[in-house]
Order: sequence, then structure tokens, then C-alpha cells
Amino acid sequence: MADNFDSYVPEMVATRRKFHARPELGWTEFETTATVITRLRALGYQVLCGTQVVKPEAVLGRDEKLVAAAIERAKSAGVSDELLSEMGGYTGAVGILDTGRPGPTLAFRFDMDALPIQELQDPAVHLPAKEGFASTFKGVMHACGHDAHTAVGLGVARWLMDHKDELVGKVKLIFQPSEEGTRGSSPMTAAGVVDDVDWFFGGHIGTECHSHEVGVCHDVFLATVKFDVDFTGLESHAGAAPEKGRSALLAAANAAVMLSAISRTSEGDTRISVGKLVAGTGRNITPAHAHMECEVRGTTSEACDFMWEKAQTVVKGAAEMLGVEVKLTKVGEATTLKATPAAMEVVRKAAAAAKDVKEVKEITAPQASEDCTIFTRAVVAHGGNAAFFLYGCEHHGHHRPDFDVQDTVNLEPGLEVFAGIAKEVLGRK
Amino acid sequence: MADNFDSYVPEMVATRRKFHARPELGWTEFETTATVITRLRALGYQVLCGTQVVKPEAVLGRDEKLVAAAIERAKSAGVSDELLSEMGGYTGAVGILDTGRPGPTLAFRFDMDALPIQELQDPAVHLPAKEGFASTFKGVMHACGHDAHTAVGLGVARWLMDHKDELVGKVKLIFQPSEEGTRGSSPMTAAGVVDDVDWFFGGHIGTECHSHEVGVCHDVFLATVKFDVDFTGLESHAGAAPEKGRSALLAAANAAVMLSAISRTSEGDTRISVGKLVAGTGRNITPAHAHMECEVRGTTSEACDFMWEKAQTVVKGAAEMLGVEVKLTKVGEATTLKATPAAMEVVRKAAAAAKDVKEVKEITAPQASEDCTIFTRAVVAHGGNAAFFLYGCEHHGHHRPDFDVQDTVNLEPGLEVFAGIAKEVLGRK
Amino acid sequence: MADNFDSYVPEMVATRRKFHARPELGWTEFETTATVITRLRALGYQVLCGTQVVKPEAVLGRDEKLVAAAIERAKSAGVSDELLSEMGGYTGAVGILDTGRPGPTLAFRFDMDALPIQELQDPAVHLPAKEGFASTFKGVMHACGHDAHTAVGLGVARWLMDHKDELVGKVKLIFQPSEEGTRGSSPMTAAGVVDDVDWFFGGHIGTECHSHEVGVCHDVFLATVKFDVDFTGLESHAGAAPEKGRSALLAAANAAVMLSAISRTSEGDTRISVGKLVAGTGRNITPAHAHMECEVRGTTSEACDFMWEKAQTVVKGAAEMLGVEVKLTKVGEATTLKATPAAMEVVRKAAAAAKDVKEVKEITAPQASEDCTIFTRAVVAHGGNAAFFLYGCEHHGHHRPDFDVQDTVNLEPGLEVFAGIAKEVLGRK
Amino acid sequence: MADNFDSYVPEMVATRRKFHARPELGWTEFETTATVITRLRALGYQVLCGTQVVKPEAVLGRDEKLVAAAIERAKSAGVSDELLSEMGGYTGAVGILDTGRPGPTLAFRFDMDALPIQELQDPAVHLPAKEGFASTFKGVMHACGHDAHTAVGLGVARWLMDHKDELVGKVKLIFQPSEEGTRGSSPMTAAGVVDDVDWFFGGHIGTECHSHEVGVCHDVFLATVKFDVDFTGLESHAGAAPEKGRSALLAAANAAVMLSAISRTSEGDTRISVGKLVAGTGRNITPAHAHMECEVRGTTSEACDFMWEKAQTVVKGAAEMLGVEVKLTKVGEATTLKATPAAMEVVRKAAAAAKDVKEVKEITAPQASEDCTIFTRAVVAHGGNAAFFLYGCEHHGHHRPDFDVQDTVNLEPGLEVFAGIAKEVLGRK
Repeated sequence: MADNFDSYVPEMVATRRKFHARPELGWTEFETTATVITRLRALGYQVLCGTQVVKPEAVLGRDEKLVAAAIERAKSAGVSDELLSEMGGYTGAVGILDTGRPGPTLAFRFDMDALPIQELQDPAVHLPAKEGFASTFKGVMHACGHDAHTAVGLGVARWLMDHKDELVGKVKLIFQPSEEGTRGSSPMTAAGVVDDVDWFFGGHIGTECHSHEVGVCHDVFLATVKFDVDFTGLESHAGAAPEKGRSALLAAANAAVMLSAISRTSEGDTRISVGKLVAGTGRNITPAHAHMECEVRGTTSEACDFMWEKAQTVVKGAAEMLGVEVKLTKVGEATTLKATPAAMEVVRKAAAAAKDVKEVKEITAPQASEDCTIFTRAVVAHGGNAAFFLYGCEHHGHHRPDFDVQDTVNLEPGLEVFAGIAKEVLGRK
Repeated sequence: MADNFDSYVPEMVATRRKFHARPELGWTEFETTATVITRLRALGYQVLCGTQVVKPEAVLGRDEKLVAAAIERAKSAGVSDELLSEMGGYTGAVGILDTGRPGPTLAFRFDMDALPIQELQDPAVHLPAKEGFASTFKGVMHACGHDAHTAVGLGVARWLMDHKDELVGKVKLIFQPSEEGTRGSSPMTAAGVVDDVDWFFGGHIGTECHSHEVGVCHDVFLATVKFDVDFTGLESHAGAAPEKGRSALLAAANAAVMLSAISRTSEGDTRISVGKLVAGTGRNITPAHAHMECEVRGTTSEACDFMWEKAQTVVKGAAEMLGVEVKLTKVGEATTLKATPAAMEVVRKAAAAAKDVKEVKEITAPQASEDCTIFTRAVVAHGGNAAFFLYGCEHHGHHRPDFDVQDTVNLEPGLEVFAGIAKEVLGRK
Repeated sequence: MADNFDSYVPEMVATRRKFHARPELGWTEFETTATVITRLRALGYQVLCGTQVVKPEAVLGRDEKLVAAAIERAKSAGVSDELLSEMGGYTGAVGILDTGRPGPTLAFRFDMDALPIQELQDPAVHLPAKEGFASTFKGVMHACGHDAHTAVGLGVARWLMDHKDELVGKVKLIFQPSEEGTRGSSPMTAAGVVDDVDWFFGGHIGTECHSHEVGVCHDVFLATVKFDVDFTGLESHAGAAPEKGRSALLAAANAAVMLSAISRTSEGDTRISVGKLVAGTGRNITPAHAHMECEVRGTTSEACDFMWEKAQTVVKGAAEMLGVEVKLTKVGEATTLKATPAAMEVVRKAAAAAKDVKEVKEITAPQASEDCTIFTRAVVAHGGNAAFFLYGCEHHGHHRPDFDVQDTVNLEPGLEVFAGIAKEVLGRK
Repeated sequence: MADNFDSYVPEMVATRRKFHARPELGWTEFETTATVITRLRALGYQVLCGTQVVKPEAVLGRDEKLVAAAIERAKSAGVSDELLSEMGGYTGAVGILDTGRPGPTLAFRFDMDALPIQELQDPAVHLPAKEGFASTFKGVMHACGHDAHTAVGLGVARWLMDHKDELVGKVKLIFQPSEEGTRGSSPMTAAGVVDDVDWFFGGHIGTECHSHEVGVCHDVFLATVKFDVDFTGLESHAGAAPEKGRSALLAAANAAVMLSAISRTSEGDTRISVGKLVAGTGRNITPAHAHMECEVRGTTSEACDFMWEKAQTVVKGAAEMLGVEVKLTKVGEATTLKATPAAMEVVRKAAAAAKDVKEVKEITAPQASEDCTIFTRAVVAHGGNAAFFLYGCEHHGHHRPDFDVQDTVNLEPGLEVFAGIAKEVLGRK
């Protein structure tokens, strides 16, 4: 059967625009997940979801109130009670295609969540507004292309089913929730989703690559831990009885400074950010509560681990100094990529063979963090191979209100590279 | 003309309950001020208001948005455009009664504002709820008795007019806005309201006194300065370009600690409170803004001045350390009482002569702050006499959702003492 | 037997000048103690010393090296091995005179130590230099008059023995070491020295009183705790391996700031001082050691206790934040005076009766700290009476290189008041 | 003329041992400089010294007292007044050999200073002790091999003069003082010493190379700035008048914390070290002085510049916060190497041709800092070429009391490489 990739484009574009119009934040992708599950099953995939693919104890950064509201919204949008019940409150799904022929297990990962950004609504300068598929959810937007990722994933699903007779082994299509904040891959990994995977690949649209370029990622991602800190002290009248209070604000202020003062390490370059601090209720009341949102990063996992370990020590000591309680919650994590040479070479070959890819680049400069690294680490740890690649698009910058991808042009190369990888790894000789 | 104080009670009670049901926050007392102006004029007083009694440049802690909304609400409640126009956006009024006979000028001060507290609405335990005069404004409540103060003030106004033939000199009835946060007396003083005052008296219901008790205040109030601090830095991506950001959060955190670390002083006992700190927008963004709400206090004005001067230095240095901008706004101030012995003795005599006062106490233990002290300092500074007294009530504690006064019993002693003071100071021999 | 106080002066002056020439720091007063013991025994007193009067476990701020050197110096100065052996390494002595007649037990306290100050050696302006009794010990000086206190104590001892037939009950003369730094009274109190005392009195020369004045002290002393803090971290090369170090300097720096930031208390006015901080060995080495010298004070014992408790919490938390060890050593303590009215009245009577006292003052303004308060607290706690008084002198200021007392004039009033107190309390009727 | 390098060894060894026995700290190398000048002149070099080669205004980290004492010691050791006068108080010398033939200018740099380390004196385990050339200066030791560098430099000087007929252009031999603390190259560069240099080379014995190895250094050095900070506040009695003091200790403590909290930068990995902090005189005195010793580093000059700029801001702001004065003194600096490929290739060729070099290594891992980089930056900035190399030795580690080089074996390869470089760059065709 000929590839005829062009024939997959219209459906991918329509799917991407559907997702774009109804963007869902991390852990609330109920409509998106429902669409994915329904389509995969229609194609003939075995589909796992809910706690089959997400381990609740390992879930990071999930807001129960947002989840509850999203479930209600999904119901209103027509998602069946049966399907919602199957999801059990957890978004994300894995489609499995077993060829029945001996061979390795290959996994692809596609992330599905949107960002808390208000999309530009000016039709003069923003195509989604002009074409009528801009976000209809106030303050939420697909500003990082995960709508495209999910659409490509469903295109890949169809292509694989169309070509399953040419393949051996098994394919797992991982549709991951909550990549923003690096929250979703840890609980999927903990649920064992990649335990049997021999070859693992993930991809991202844009960033360092323009249209028709593919980038093979070296060890470019920063390891990171995202965490919240909540201090609880004791209120008192700051004028009449300051000695009866215990200031959570002062504990947080001192912690903010001392977190920033964690020493550098020779194990790698590091980052520490105290990005948010909210404490106290009024001028003359000893503040009983303080909330901080922080993250540490490292160019090596050792450097990131060093920062995370020290951060915990600092925060606990700061609480003790003021006699207040502290709760420290990890809300996200990712590590460095550690792609294997064999998998990187597979990407290069697939990209070179793709008709819509004009250039294959090596990506070596440090990037932001990407929680796909949690999957790659697990796969590499049990002896598998893993890699990550970029497929280009024109854009003004990710995480911006005017971000967009040229879906009619930029989705096809993604499909071609994933398909090419499948042929490389699982193609019948 | 006999005093017959009992006959004034029904109107005072009704007035107090009217105010109680429609409590207004500091600088938004448009309905209350309108009632005061209208009543005083009906009684025959000359009334000054707006910028005649409040100097705009000296106003502290006034929120333009709240003011604008309050004006609209006052209009809806029937306050005339003419009266609102006369107020010119500033609450507060002064009623003047000139006997035409030579004599000293006597001033009484009554404060009118409410607190941002949600009143208890349980009729089983809270009389205002049972009797139907609980606050009808969500989240705002007369929880410090200023409704009673204003009602007593209007009672005093009527009594004085009823007895004007027995008096000499001149009376000024100062109805002050925005005592909470110690914001209203500074701009009234700056407007010259007490420049010609020879004898000045203020009072407060409750606190250290029970029903039928009057307390003569010694130097019990803490001097204070309330201030806001706003740091403005520069945003950057905390992972990709931390060096391009300048953290307002870190400046505020360090300032919070170093404000608390201002040295003690032998000039008096002090307080410093950083009661609120809000900074940053997200975990991975260098925070460009930080807002702090603070106050300093001292048992002497020297000690308070020391704290305020040091606080300014600390905050500016903290900004410089992080290369961020800082704006420091004084939003309230009060000083120590420094009552004069002659005026205190006048209060003792008036209280001793009052039929509903059973006990006169000397109040010597330090209290909270009271911005009536700004008036007393000004009066004493130009050679006048001033004092402050308490008239008792039963209560569970001020600034609580279940605070209440027994208006049928507790207002009359207030009226009696103010009237007695007028007779002492201005009585025709 | 007539008082004839003048006849005691020459010996007191000679004794004081002898002590002045050989001043001894706290816990090293071996020569002074030897003189005291020898003289008291010669007069017929029972004398206790060493661990009979000082409980080693309760000793504060004692430097073993200084003690060892002082013992050697005392040997060279002729103090016998027998006497030194009796002292057992601890200075201080208590002389007991039991009249054999029933009556209360009266205690007087005299402190003996000098200060680490280099005395002025200019004979033109400094009498001790001119008359040849200036300090012969480099860097040590009796700059607070404790030489005079000890000399007066020995004068009082002689007077009491001369008049023992006129007295009832029992007298204890407490010669206390190490008042500077408030270190000596705690271990003497712990040794039970004042357990049987019914009336207790201490005095100080100078401060608020001029020659021929006596001051009766109200609750004027600040409670205090003096303490050292030693942090121990881990060295590392700050450039090559910062992550292997743990900075004691940073722990101390943060502790210094956060100690200063301990909140005020409504229980009393407070002080906190981090007076010294020494940390680190070189620019590029993570500092493994840091030493801090601190003190807290309070106008009430509650306020001081609050500061001391918080200080311990701060210091421990600061160590935990940096992962370093911390050792906190209390090196001195004193409390507030809490003199009893009965004992104060005894002082007033004795002072009024003294021929060389022209004026008796009431001392009410807060002073520095005085560890005699540890004795007074213990005496008052078991139902006894206690007071403290000043006997005046002309001076340029205590703790200065040019401090001096006019011994020929200023010692006699001290003797007279102590003698008068003995007559008041123990005089046979 | 044949090279016959072996014949230069005995003199180099004797010279090195002479220097080793009389090690001199940075800026005090008067004896060493005198030896260098005398030898160079004897060989026929034109020699510049004193302010001809060191710009006083640009001198870093020079202790006047140490210099004065060293001049006296040098006099006692026989250095002539004439020579000392020529040096004018500044160590360091430059020898110039002009062949008279057109050609480039080639410079070699040799550093001369020792370290404040007490040398091991055990003849059983330490050769210098056994052979009688261990340091005779208490607490000072050549523990980094600069004695060997200077001896090799004089060997190179002799070899060049012996082979001057085979060379073209000009040679400058730079004998630099005060490399430790990275203090000496800045003022020599400022004096114009390398303004006319086309090819520049420096070398170091040991570190990453064993005997008979040569290492060609890539961009391995950390840029650094060393600086001292002195805060001056105001003393006061911490109990009686804390408000009259201004604590330099608290300013330093806050600065120490906030220096450590300078943000990371994407421009390179960084270091910050507050290695020493000494403040205050006593427990109860507001500390008027505080002294800190600090350094910043960066893997790029941009990163180091960022740290240095921020450090200055932090320190100034910290002073302002406490109302104290601050003096910030740069006492050392170095930058990154930025060697040129052409010069690195020259080193490789020279090393490959050297008979005593068995292996040529590429050195790429980050090292400590080296102020030779100030010269290389200046040479490269005006279009010249520069490189730095290591010549090996066996050792237990630099900056240790038991450091030693095997001078009979390890000096000759250094001579051979420098000579080889001269032949490569200046050899007559």
C-alpha cells in the first residue's frame, strides 16, 4: 500500500482545529481524551485509559476543582457518562496495535494540554480568529502546538492501521495529559505505560525548526522539579500581641532568599526560581499563611537533584526558624533527555526519507524542560532506545497569544517522520 | 431648659440602626455624610464639607475605584446630585454653631466609617439580625461602633442647639471619615479644621469600658504609620534567561526580613508588621511586581518616627540591591495622645455629673492606635487643650462579626458626657 | 560601741588600691579571692569557697585557658597552693557570721571582677597613674568600681565583727566573681548560697548617683541572656566543588538577620544584639566555621524569656537550612530586680541615717543589666526581701579607660549604708 | 648550534631550589626579582622593571606592610639599594632580546610568587626537607611550582641568548609577580607590557599532566573577580541606645546572603563565594566595622561580568539599607583563556618535537582561574595569537604542604617546549 501521506492531511487539519477551538488545561483534557479514545477504537485499537495508564498516587499538580468543572463541561459537550466513568477522573489514553508478528514494541508519545493564555482574537492578524477556530474558552489557548501533536497522533494512528500488514511487533500510542508544568509523564510512567517499550519516540512542533526542517535532539533539555510551598503560622494582632503570632510571611520571605542562595554546583549549570509568593491578609495581622511557587533546573540530573535536595532542606529550616508548619508539594518534574544514538539515527533516516522534509538539523543548544524525558529515562533504564525530534513550523514564539502553526503545511512532515520511524523499527523485511 | 437626655435616645437609636444597616468603608461614607449634612443644616448649623474640610493632597489610603462605586450607590440611594457635587468626592463634614457670645471654640470629633467584615446574620444570637438592621452591604460592617459615634454626634448636635442660649463661644462638630487605617484625620487637620480650636474632645464606645463606665484616657495610644510598598522589576523566563530579569519578589522578601530586623530603640517600645506580600505571576517567570502592606508603631512618637525613617531606608536599599524600582505610599498615620490635664479634668467632671455614668476610670494601659491623636497633637501644639474618653458598652470584642452595642442603653451616657463637657467649657456663668 | 566609720576608711582605701593595681577578669579573681578569704578568716568569719559556693555545672562564660593562666599568676604572686587547692579552680567566697542569737539571715553581695580595658596611664589626668596604683595588668582594668565594692565589703566585714554583740541572727557576705557578662550569680545561686537568706542587699558605686547621694533602685534592670553561637559546616573549594561544602558563614549571616527580626512582644520592651561574627578562612574556601556573640534583653523577664526562646529556635533553624551543625552556649544571664517594698524601705532608712549621705534618690529609669538580680529573684521566690542601691561617686563614665572613684570620700557612705541596713534588720532591740 | 637541552638542567635545578628555600608572597618577590634582573642582565638582556612594567594605579591586592617588610628582608639578604631603588617598590621584570632582524615579537610569561602555606618539614617523606632546600620562611611555601616556572624562565633566557643567531624578530620574557589571587597580570598589562606582542605563550607545571606529558589548553579557565568589602557603621551601646548605632555586621550578613542569591545566568555557569566575614568587637556593642572577602567566577567572561556587576549593586544596596558606608576593593581578576588555534598549533608542534615529551594532550575540562588570561585577552584583542600549555610532573596536589616537583626530570620538558615555540615562531628560514 502506497504511503500517500497527502491524503491524511485534511483530517489532521480538521482535528487540530477542533482541538484548537476547545483547548483544555493539564488534567482537564476530558473532551480531547474522549475524542482520542473514540477515534482509536473506531480505527480498531485496543485502548487503555484512566487509572490503567495514570497512577493516581504519582499524579503531580492536579487541581480537583478544575477537574470537577471540566468533567461537567465535557458532559455538556456530549461526552458520554459511560466514557467519563471509564476515565475515572483521569485524562490520557494509550492505543495499542499488536501486529501479531514477533518484533519489538515501539511507542510514540503525543501531548494534549493547553495553556492559561488568552488567545488573540484579531482576525486581521491571527488566522484562527479569521478562520473561526480560535479558542472559545476564555483564558485558555493551545499556544504551544499540542493540538497539532494530538492531531498528528491520530493521523499516525490511522496510517499505522492502514499499514499494519507491513509491520511486525507492537505499537503503543501514548496520548499524554498535562505536559505543561511537566506533570503528566511521571504518573503514566509509574503506571507502567513504557515498561515493555523497546523503542520510544516523542516530538514537538516548532521551537528551533522552521517549516520543512526536522531537528534531532541531543541532550538539550533541562532537568527540573516544580514545587509549591505552603507555610502555616499563627495569626495575632500585630500591634497588641505580636508575640502570640508566628509569621508564615517571614518564613516564606526568608525561604525565598535562601532558596536563591543555594550554592552553585560543579555538577552542572543550575536555575532556581521563586516565581510567586502570596502571604497574609491585612496590614496589622501576623500572617498565618504563605504560598510559594518555585522550580529548580539543572543541565544534568545530578545538578537538578542537588538543587531539589537543598531546596527541601532550606524550606524546612525556614519553617523551623519561625516555628511555623510547612507543606512542600512536588507538582512537576522532568529530567534530561539522554537519547540513545541508535534511536537518534532512526530519526535521521526517517527524516531524510520524508518527502516534505528539506533539512535535518542537529539540536545541541540547551532548551527549556520537556517531561517526555521521564519516559525516555525509563525506557533507556531498562535497556531500550529513545529519541526526541522537532518538526518545524513558522511562528512568533511559543506561549504567546498570537502563536499559530500552518497546519495545512506543518502537520504532514510530523506524520511522515513518525511513519518513517515505524517503518525503520517495525518494517517487515 | 432641663437636660431631659432620655428624650434624645429614640432618635439616636434609630439613626444608629440606619447607619448600621448601610455601613460604608473609609472615604466612601457618602450616604452617611449626606445624612449628617442634611440633619445638621435642618438643625440650623453652618456646615462645611468636601475640600473645605479635607485637603486632597494630604489624603491617605483612598481607593478611587471604591469611591466612584460608592458615589453611584449613594445616587441610587437617593442622595442628591447637588449634595454629592458639594462634597466633590470627599466625605466628611463639619457643623458649626456660633453662639455670638465671646468665648472659646470647642470641637467634638465623631468618626463614621465601617470595616471590611461580613456581619453575623444569625437572628438567634445577633440582635441586629433579629431586629432587622444588620448590614445589607456584603462584606462591610460597623464592627467598631462608629455608627454609634455618628448617631451620638447628631444627638449632641440637637442637644447643643436646644441649649445654645446657655452657652458662649463656638462649637465645631467634626464628622470624620476613614478612621480605620488612621487615614482621615491627617487631611482634615491639614485643611485647618482644628486651627481655631481651644478645646478638643473625642470619644470611643466600648473597648476597656463596660456599660455605665467612662474612661479618661492617659497617653495610651500607639503612634503609627501605615504604608504600602510596591516594587517593580523586570520579567524574564526564569529558566532560559534569568539574567535578563530583576526579581521584585526577591527585593520584597529581603525587605520584609530587613524591615523586621530594624533595631529596637531606647526611645520607646515599637512594632513592625509586614502583614501582606503578593508577588509574581507564575513559577517560571522572574516576578516583575511585588506589593507589601506594612505598619510601624511606637509607644512614643519618637519611637514611631525612628521606625518609619528606618523603614524607608530599608525599602529603598532593598530595591537598589535588586536593581528594581520602588514606590512607597503612606496610607495612614496616628500619633500618641498627649491629652492635657485640664481637658482630662473636664472629662472627669462631666462624667461624674452624668446621671447614667456609674464609674469613672483612668485608662493607662497601652491600646491600639487612634487617629484622633492627629487632631489632639495639632490642638495642643497651638496651645489648646485636648482629651479623649471611652463610654462603655457590653461586647464580645471589636472588629468581630458578632460585635454589637446596646444602643438603647449605651448611647445616652455618650451624649451626657459630651453635653457635660460643653457645659463645663462653654457654659454661661 | 560607737560607729566611728571614719576609722575604717584608710584600710578600705588601701585595699581598694591594691585590687585596682591587680585587676582580674571574671572567673580569674584568684588573688582577689585569696585576699578576701584570708582577711575574713583573720576577722573570725567562717568562710566557704570553691564548689561550696559555685556550682560548676551552672557556671557561665568561663574560659579554661584564662583560668589556668590566672592560677599560675596567682601562684607567682604568692597565693598558697593550699588556698588555691581549696578554691578548686573556682573564684568567689562567702563569709558567715552567726551571732548565736535567734534572728533572720541577712546577706550582702559584693562583686570583684574587672574589665578587658586598657587603663589610662597619664599621671596628669588620671589619679591612679599619678598615685601609682593604676593597673599593672595589660589590657585589664577595674573600670566599673568592683575594686571599691570588694574593699567596702571587707570594711563591712570588719564593722560587723566589731559590732556583733549588738546584732542578732546571721550575716552572709557574698563575694561574687564574674559580674561583668552577668555570669557569676547564677552558679552561686545554684549552689544554694542564698537559700537560707531572709534579707538580701546589693549595691553599686556611681552610675546615676554623685558623691554623697544614695539611690534606691526600683525595677530598673533589664533581664538578659548572653550567648555564643558556633556553626560548623564543611570546607570545599568554592570554585571547583561548591556543592561539596556547607557554609557556616551563610548560616551565621542568615541567623544574624533573623535574630534581629524576632518579633516585638507586648510583654515588654526588648533588645537583641549580634555584636560579633567571625567566619571563614579564605576567599575561595567554603567557610566551615562561624562564631557569633549575642545577647537579648527585656524590660520584663517575660519579654527576655520570649527573646531567648525565639533566639534558640532561629539559630537551630538557620543551621538546619544550611545543613550545618550548631552549638549554642549561654554565657551569662540576669533578670529584672523585683525589689520588695520592705527591703527598699530599709535602704531608705539606713541611707537617711548615714552621716555622709546628703540625698536619697529614687532610681526609676531603666538601666543596663546586673546579675545581682539572679540572687534577688531567688530570695524573693522563697519569701524573702531584697533590694539594691547605688552609692555615688564623681566619674566620667563607667567602662572607660579614665574611670575612677574618689576612694577617700566615696567608700565610706557605702560602708555606712550597709552597716545601717545591718542595724535595721539585725539590730538587738 | 645544537640544542643540548640536558646541559641547561643543573643550573635550572639549582635556581629552582634557591627560590624554593626563600619563597615570597605576591608583590613581595624582591629577592626573586633581583635574581631575575641580575641574571638577565648578565646574559645580555635589556631589562625593564618597577613602574616600567607595573602600572601602580592598576595594582590589585597589594599589602603595603608586607611590601615594606619584604624590602627590609631583601636588603638583609644582600639585594643592593640601587636595585631596590630601581624596582621602586614593585616586583616583576621584563627581559628583552632584539635580534635586530625583522620579525614578529614573541612573549613568554613566567610567574614567581609563593603561597601562605607552611611547608612540610619531614625529611622522611618530603624531598625539599631531605635535601635541605625546604622553605626557610615560616608559613610561606612554593606549593604551586612558580619556583620551577621562574627557573625554567631563566633557562629559556639562556637558551635564547645561546641561539639568538638562529632567530629573527624580538623576544620578551615576562617575569610576573603575584599570580596567586590573580593580581599581577592586570597592572603589567595596563603598563603596556604586551602591547607590541604578536605571539604570546604561558605555561604551568603539573595540574592535569604527569611527567613527560604536555597539555594544550582549550578554553578551560574560569573568569574571576576577587574583591574585599568593608562596611563602616556606627557604634552604640546595644542595650542602652541601639537606635544610635548602625550595624555594619547586619549589612555584611545581609550582603553575604544576597550575594549568594544573585540569579544564575544563561551566559555561562557561575560561582560566588563569601569566604570570610569578620565583624564587631563585643557582644553588647553595635558593630561599627565588617570585613568580607569574596570572589565571583564564570565559565565565560560574560557570566563573570554579570556576577561582578550584580555583586557591586548588592553590596551598595546592603550598605544603604543599614545606613552604613561601604568600600569595595577589587583585589584580583582573571578572564577566560580564548587561546587562538594558530598558537595552540604552535604548542602542539613544539611539544611533538621535544625529546622529553612522550604525550601531547588536549585539556578541555574546566580548571581553576589563571591570570595569564589577562595577557592573552589583550594580545588577542589587538590581533595577536596566544596559547597556554601544561608541562607535567608527579605531585600530590597543588596548594598542599607536601607539594613538590621532580626538578631533575620535570624542568627540561618545559625548557624544550618554550625553545621549540621560539623556533617555530622566530626561527630563521
